[in-house]
Amino acid sequence: MIRHTVVFKLIHPKDSAGEKVFLDAIKKLSAIPGVQKFELLKQTGSKNNYDYGLSMEFETAKAYEGYNQHPDHTAFVKTFWIKEVRDFLEIDYEPLK
Amino acid sequence: MIRHTVVFKLIHPKDSAGEKVFLDAIKKLSAIPGVQKFELLKQTGSKNNYDYGLSMEFETAKAYEGYNQHPDHTAFVKTFWIKEVRDFLEIDYEPLK
Repeated sequence: MIRHTVVFKLIHPKDSAGEKVFLDAIKKLSAIPGVQKFELLKQTGSKNNYDYGLSMEFETAKAYEGYNQHPDHTAFVKTFWIKEVRDFLEIDYEPLK
Repeated sequence: MIRHTVVFKLIHPKDSAGEKVFLDAIKKLSAIPGVQKFELLKQTGSKNNYDYGLSMEFETAKAYEGYNQHPDHTAFVKTFWIKEVRDFLEIDYEPLK
């Protein structure tokens, strides 16, 4: 199991139309083959400056790679992510043996 | 639901005795009342410099506060965390409404 997480902050004000369009678009990543346990979350801790989190799991590294290269993912990155995300950090987890 | 996560890096070399003692100690936090879905994880992404992750969930903010103030937690922080963690980031999540 690989858990891929991204914590991020948007260029859009809270509760704006731009934020809504972005969040609706990001939810569609859940339909890409191999994506399991998809979660779009609110970041509520006071010890960092991010507002949202994304978490999903893949059974294998191959499934994760398939997601990364899937045209729906690359189109999302090009159309939304690189333009509308102000700051982010990717953190990936695997079980500790 | 509040998911409390911490991604961190230790002062200890990989597979050292010091690392093992630390990881054994951190696992005991799972026994503190209110802690649910406790996970100790390996951070495997290449886009940050952390090695481990901790994830746990609380049903309420009160349960989370109870964990923070629990003597087993404060003793762990004093005895292990502040001495043996080189770098860390706390990220907390709640469901997005």
